[in-house]
Formats: sequence, C-alpha cells, structure tokens
Amino acid sequence: MAKEVTQRSDNYSQWYNDLVVKADLAEQSAVRGCMVIKPYGYAIWEKMQDILDAEFKKTGVKNAYFPLFIPKSFFSREAEHVSGFAKECAVVTHHRLMTSPDGKGVVVDPDAKLEEEMIVRPTSETIIWSVYKNWINSWRDLPILCNQWCNVVRWEMRTRPFLRTAEFLWQEGHTAHATAEEALAKAEQMVQVYADFARNVMAMPVIVGHKSPNERFAGALDTLTIEAMMQDGKALQAGTSHFLGQNFAKSFDVKYADKDGKLQYVWASSWGVSTRLMGALIMAHGDDNGLVLPPRLAPIQVVMVPIYKGDDERSAVLEKMQAVKASLESLGHSVEIDDRDTLRPGFKFAEWELKGVPVRLAMGARDLAAGTVEVARRDTLTKETLQIDGIEQHIHTLLDEIQDNIYRKALEKRDANIRKCDSWEEFKTEIQKGGFLLCHWDGTAETEQAIKDETKATIRCIPIDSVVCEEEGRDIYSGKPSNRRVVFAIAY
Amino acid sequence: MAKEVTQRSDNYSQWYNDLVVKADLAEQSAVRGCMVIKPYGYAIWEKMQDILDAEFKKTGVKNAYFPLFIPKSFFSREAEHVSGFAKECAVVTHHRLMTSPDGKGVVVDPDAKLEEEMIVRPTSETIIWSVYKNWINSWRDLPILCNQWCNVVRWEMRTRPFLRTAEFLWQEGHTAHATAEEALAKAEQMVQVYADFARNVMAMPVIVGHKSPNERFAGALDTLTIEAMMQDGKALQAGTSHFLGQNFAKSFDVKYADKDGKLQYVWASSWGVSTRLMGALIMAHGDDNGLVLPPRLAPIQVVMVPIYKGDDERSAVLEKMQAVKASLESLGHSVEIDDRDTLRPGFKFAEWELKGVPVRLAMGARDLAAGTVEVARRDTLTKETLQIDGIEQHIHTLLDEIQDNIYRKALEKRDANIRKCDSWEEFKTEIQKGGFLLCHWDGTAETEQAIKDETKATIRCIPIDSVVCEEEGRDIYSGKPSNRRVVFAIAY
Repeated sequence: MAKEVTQRSDNYSQWYNDLVVKADLAEQSAVRGCMVIKPYGYAIWEKMQDILDAEFKKTGVKNAYFPLFIPKSFFSREAEHVSGFAKECAVVTHHRLMTSPDGKGVVVDPDAKLEEEMIVRPTSETIIWSVYKNWINSWRDLPILCNQWCNVVRWEMRTRPFLRTAEFLWQEGHTAHATAEEALAKAEQMVQVYADFARNVMAMPVIVGHKSPNERFAGALDTLTIEAMMQDGKALQAGTSHFLGQNFAKSFDVKYADKDGKLQYVWASSWGVSTRLMGALIMAHGDDNGLVLPPRLAPIQVVMVPIYKGDDERSAVLEKMQAVKASLESLGHSVEIDDRDTLRPGFKFAEWELKGVPVRLAMGARDLAAGTVEVARRDTLTKETLQIDGIEQHIHTLLDEIQDNIYRKALEKRDANIRKCDSWEEFKTEIQKGGFLLCHWDGTAETEQAIKDETKATIRCIPIDSVVCEEEGRDIYSGKPSNRRVVFAIAY
Repeated sequence: MAKEVTQRSDNYSQWYNDLVVKADLAEQSAVRGCMVIKPYGYAIWEKMQDILDAEFKKTGVKNAYFPLFIPKSFFSREAEHVSGFAKECAVVTHHRLMTSPDGKGVVVDPDAKLEEEMIVRPTSETIIWSVYKNWINSWRDLPILCNQWCNVVRWEMRTRPFLRTAEFLWQEGHTAHATAEEALAKAEQMVQVYADFARNVMAMPVIVGHKSPNERFAGALDTLTIEAMMQDGKALQAGTSHFLGQNFAKSFDVKYADKDGKLQYVWASSWGVSTRLMGALIMAHGDDNGLVLPPRLAPIQVVMVPIYKGDDERSAVLEKMQAVKASLESLGHSVEIDDRDTLRPGFKFAEWELKGVPVRLAMGARDLAAGTVEVARRDTLTKETLQIDGIEQHIHTLLDEIQDNIYRKALEKRDANIRKCDSWEEFKTEIQKGGFLLCHWDGTAETEQAIKDETKATIRCIPIDSVVCEEEGRDIYSGKPSNRRVVFAIAY
C-alpha cells in the first residue's frame, strides 16, 4: 500500500488521525489546536459549502459579513452566553509590536494596549444583534435572514482535526422575526435542511431532535440537533439550530413596532454547521483502506490509471482515456487521469483508494485491443471488466448507485446499533459497547447529570423524527414516570 | 428621491460614504475600523469571488486554509516583513475571561496568559511558509499553487469602508517553485488575471506595472500592481502580485532536492485582491444618483416595477412580468419584481437607481393593452418604450452593451486624465488637479521620496502594458537621465 493506515479494530482513534493526514485532508499547524486544511480536504469542504449555500438561499437566506472581533462588553451582555464561552476564547489586548529592547525580534508594545479588549468571535450572536438593532424599526423590516461563512475560535484544551479545533470554519445563520412561532419555524426548517444534506449529500443517516436543557446552546430556549453515529458507536453532533427566544433582543434592546404601533422585542434563531462535518464524513464511511467518499462530495469522482509498457502503449491508452474523460465531464462528473510516469499502477490504486475516489478505471494495451476497461468501486472494493462502449452512461448511473449504497450501508450499521434499554444495570454495560440506547428519562437535569457522571453518556436528543419514541415508561435511573424515550450515547 | 446622496461635485468623499451606506453595501460596526458587509454588498463580493476563483483554478491553483493566528516568533523571521506589519496588528495575549472580582461583567483572566503571543494574520506568508517546509522535499513536490479566501487584520489608524478597514476579506495566493523564472512567471500571470477581471468584469480600466522599490510589499523582490483611476482623479491600487524570491524560503529553511539531488532554496510568489475592489467599483462608475453596477457583477440585473391602480391591474401586470422574468432567468439573468404595495413607483425607481441595477422595466395597464414596456438604462439614464414581444432577447443584448459602455466611459474618462508632464513647476500644480502624470524618473528612492514629501504624489507603477512609456528623457525632479516614464498620482 501507498501509505500504511492503522486498522480500525486496532485503534479507531489512530485510524481516524491516519486518514486525516495520509489522505491529505488536513494537518496540525505550529499554532496550538489550529489545523491546516490541505487542498484535497478543502475541495470537499467547498463542495459542502456550495450545496448548503444553495439550499440556504432557497429558503430566502442571504449572506453577509460581520466583524471578527467582539468587544468584551458585548460578549458579556447575555449572561448564559458569556458563561458558555468565556472560559475558552482568544483575547486581543494590544494593537502593535515593537522591536525588543535587546534588538532581537519583537515584543508587544505596552503603549498599544486597547481601551477595551476584543474577543475573537466564538460565535456571533452578540455582535450581530448589536447590528440588527440598527436594522430593525418596524414589522416591515422583518424577517431578517442572514448567514455568514467564516472562521471562529474556541480555545479548546483538547483538540482533534476537524472534530474539535481551536479555529474552525463554519456558517452561522442569524434570523430575526416578529413572532416566536416564526423564529421557531425557521429553526425547525434549518435543522431539516441540515438533515437532508447529511442524508442525501453526505450519505450519513441522522436523528433529528431537541437537546435536553443541559445540552442547549448557551443563550437558547431550545436547541435542535442532527445526531449521527460513527463506526465506533459514538455519537457525533453534526449540526445545531437554536430558538433563541427574545434573549439577545433583550440584551441588545432590539424592538420593532408591530402593526398596531406597539413596541415588541424581536424573536431570534441561529443555526450552524462547521468543518466538523468533515470529521463526520471520514468516520461515517471510511474503511481500513482509507476514505470512502460519497460521489456527491468527491472532488474527483472518477480516476483513471493507465497501464502500459513503453511510450506507444502509453499514448494509445491515454488518448482513449482522454476521450472517456471528456464524455464523463460533459455529463457533469469530475475526472482525473493519473498519468504520473514514475509510479507503479498498484501504488496509484492504493493511493486513490486511500483518498476515497468512488470509481477507478484501469486500462492497458490488452483492454484497448479488446475494447474493455476495468471498473473498480471504492465502496464495495469490487472490480469488473466492461465494454468501453457506453461506459460513460454506466458510470453515470453507477455513481448514483454508489451514493445510495454508501447511505444504505451506514443506515444498516446505525440501525443495528440502536437498541432499547430499560434497566439501569444493563444500561451501564450496554452503553460501553457503543451505539444509541433508547431509554426513558424523567425530564430532570439531575437525572441526566447523574447518568453522565456515572457513565459519560449524555442525552444526544429527544427525537422528533426517524425513530419512534413516544410511549409510557419509567426513567431508567430514577424510576420516575416518562412518556417518551430519548437517545443516550457517548459522544465525540 | 428615496434617500439623498451628496453630489460628487459638492463633496466627493461624502458622496462615496453616502453610496456605501445608502445603497446598503456596508456600514461601520461598533468595533473600531471593522465594517459590516450587508447582504446587497456581500452579494457583489460573492460574484467577484466566484468569477476570480474560477479564473484562479484555470491556472492550476487550488484552495486551502491556513491558521488565523501567527506565532509572534514566525512573524519576525523575515526582517522587512515584520517591520512592514508590526506597527498595526492585533495581538492575542490571553485565552480566557473570568468573572470580574466585583461580580459585574468579565475581565481577562491573568492566569490565562499565552506563553507566546499570537498575531492575527495581516497576510499569511510566514505561517504558510512554515507549513510548506513540511510539504516540500524534492522537485517532484513543486510547484505548489495554493490560494485561500479569508479575513485579515491590519490595525489601520484611519479607516474608510472597503478602502481601508481594520479587518477585510481577501484572497491570498501563495506559490512555491523550483526556479526564479517560474515564480516570476506566476506573479506575472496572476497580475494579468487581475487586470482581465478588472477590465472585463468590473468594467474598470487599469494600468499594469511594477511598483518602485519604495512601494513594494514588505519582503518582496518585485511587486506587480494594477492601478485604477477613480473619478476624482486619484489612483487606487486594486490588486498586487509579488515575486518573493527566496526570502521566505530562507527565513523558514525551505529547500528542495533538484534533479541532481542538490538542495536548493524554493522560489515564491504571492498575490491578492480584497474587498477594496468594492470601493474601486463604487468609485469607478457611481454617479450622483447612486451606484452604477456593471451587469456582470450586479446581484440584480433587471428590476421590474409594476404600475397599477387596484387589484385587477396589479395582478394583470404582475402576471405578464412573471412571464418575462421566467424567460430572462432562462437566459441566465437575475431578475427581481418589486411588487411592494406600500411604495410609489417613483420611490422605487430612485431606490433601484441608487442600488445601481443596470436595467429597469416599468409596465402599467396601458402598456399591457398596447403590448409595450418601458426600458430604462442605469448607465445612460435613458428610457425607451419597446414592444414586449422579443424583449428578453433585447435585454440579453442590452446587458452586454451596458457592460461595454460602462467600460468605455471609464476608459475615456481615465485616458482624458493621463497626461505627460516634463517640468517640476508644472508637476506641482498639475498633480493637485488629479489624474495620472507620466513623468521621467531617475530610478532612485531619494527622488521618489522628495517628490512624495513635497506633493503627496507617489509612483503608482512603472507600466508594462497599456501605456507607452519607453523614451529617453530627464527626471522631472533631479534632472538626471531616465529611459522611461512612470505613473505618478495621489493615491487612496
């Protein structure tokens, strides 16, 4: 193989790190907890952005851009919000460097201290609501539906590429509405946009639900989430959408005159997904040979590897490949011919497998003579030799089939690891095996915390679709009555 | 008029600020020198990004993402670079806030001081070359052609929306090459990509040339620039591309083994354009009624305003408009019907004029009966009544015509303000009138500085195309011999 990847069964966590680095997705930088997203990884993120952005715009959302820095005083206006983010943030205190007194290098100029410190945004509710105050006077100014694609910083102590980094890229939507119903409807609409994207584009099944109060976004009245299951059975929160009530409107005094001229506080939602989705994508589908990319997100959907001896064979094979490439491109597919002359085909096969390219075509002089081509699928690791005539249409269809198959496989794996559990003793053992446990919960923060303290499991969500949970029962821990099951899991 | 705009002849600078705010492009935020880019302004920036990004990719460039923060020690490794940026940068010194001892608000936690301060990137050469060191071993790893779209921060003391802001958005390309020739060729290629974009998309004429050593990027051996002339006769540097030699490779010890196995330092280019282009766009074409957007960058290319009395007329007109909108959209154009019921048509006309929409269609009950529509051009402020049949094809062609006309107008205005000047006395008067003065220069930094000190004029560039400058003469200030004219102007 091109580059050795740790096997999942040996060390799942190391397998993940290997894939990130060896498939050229990202690497650690010299800056604590900040990663470099390499071109191949970034190309996947760009595809995610393009598709999501188009979906947002279909719902009437427009992009805008708000400042990177948040004055400390803004940051602390919403009490829960600041307590949620103050402990891990980057603080700008000075605006100038000067030559060091010893003449070597530079030091911070003590005379350039800011009057008020700035926080590098960990999320932008506060700065955005300080701006919305100027945009909103009457009901005619509502709704406001803005989104921004940007970087944010949370000074996490333990980081992992894509999953938890000090700086990450994301989008954050921030909407302002005249009524609670509208704001809540927007939050619900956007979590469904995320769920559709996860399922149809990332080929990743998710459960949509409400967070328990303990797990809500700092400052939200309700947080909706999409929860995915990774191959090790752990949960990964892949996107959230918040109903913020009037909390930020009150903190920043944002009111509108309603149709009767009465002043009312504005209602809000916010919602975001981040480069964390890249981590989810890797862990949802990767195997011991490397990444497995769903065709809809693969920067290269089809790779062609020529097999030849000598220049004549090489140019004959490449010429045929160019023709196939052109027709595949005209069908909207991204194709690369790997014509590097210094590497053996076997090495190339392994490298493209590692990078998760959905379809690989190999062609040699004998194929050329016989009018055939070898077609290899990344998802099943199967190969077949097919007639080159009509191969474009075959691949066009095959890519859809692969997309569906990857989803089906992930769905089957996930569903096999969702189980009901009704005894506390059983829960303690079962939760360590991974997967989602559907259990009754009495609805109290105390019980949730006690379960977390004993097992590290948290309530991932109170599902609103895709799993049936409404039934009478008794809380698994407290024994108190409950009218629905919730999803417990150990999470990333 | 919808909103009053200062006339250019009264106060050009205020006219600019009015357009930025009243056309809903951007506004100041509560954060010193940082702006909010509003949805209408951001939509123009998105169009710029999409078109430029596609052009970059055609040249083999790939996008990636590098950290926001630069360790102070990296920043100071290249001596000229640090002296160019150290005086105006945002410095992160702490990573945590804590509740204030008096219980009110939050303060910086003194225990959370970083071991090494981080600079918020003003440009990313240093962090990127620290990463390229890991990517480059042999000639086979070259060239590396990366670009990133991101935010940067330069703590400017005097700021103006888009033209000079503490935080701005930009793209920065960073390439690594085996030879000086290749790196220089890349820098030249990219400045031409910028020039083509300025001319063909922004409809803005530019002069391409080299910067004088005084005006080079901090750390570059050569800086190429595109220089545009604003309507007040001032110059605006709209994009730069740098040949960095081996400076950053040496600072970060980046070497490659050449084909003979010999270690060589790597050669570099970097190049960027920013949201400053938005300022250029406004000032290049705007008039006393507002923005004038070239069709290729207009978020809305055609706006339709219905004129009606009563619901019946309204629905009849809107129905017809919907049909025209659909056919225009199928031709690839962006169209909006302004069906707001509470505003008069005249108010709407003024508002869309202010926002620079290239074509406005108005239609009333009489038009409907006569099968006509009123077509108004933003660039010429002319109107004509045309048959509605075939209007889509007419507008399709008209948009191209408008694009060309806006460019031609800007080119004529600019060329009328480029003049030769051969006497120092004359120079001192002429330069205050605005425009570009083509003058002989002796090539020394001293003369350039003396001219700047006396007149505020700088050498905008030593042109390499579009104006003929090669001729013998004598320096306008020192009288020393010179073999080509250069462009002097007062600049933004």
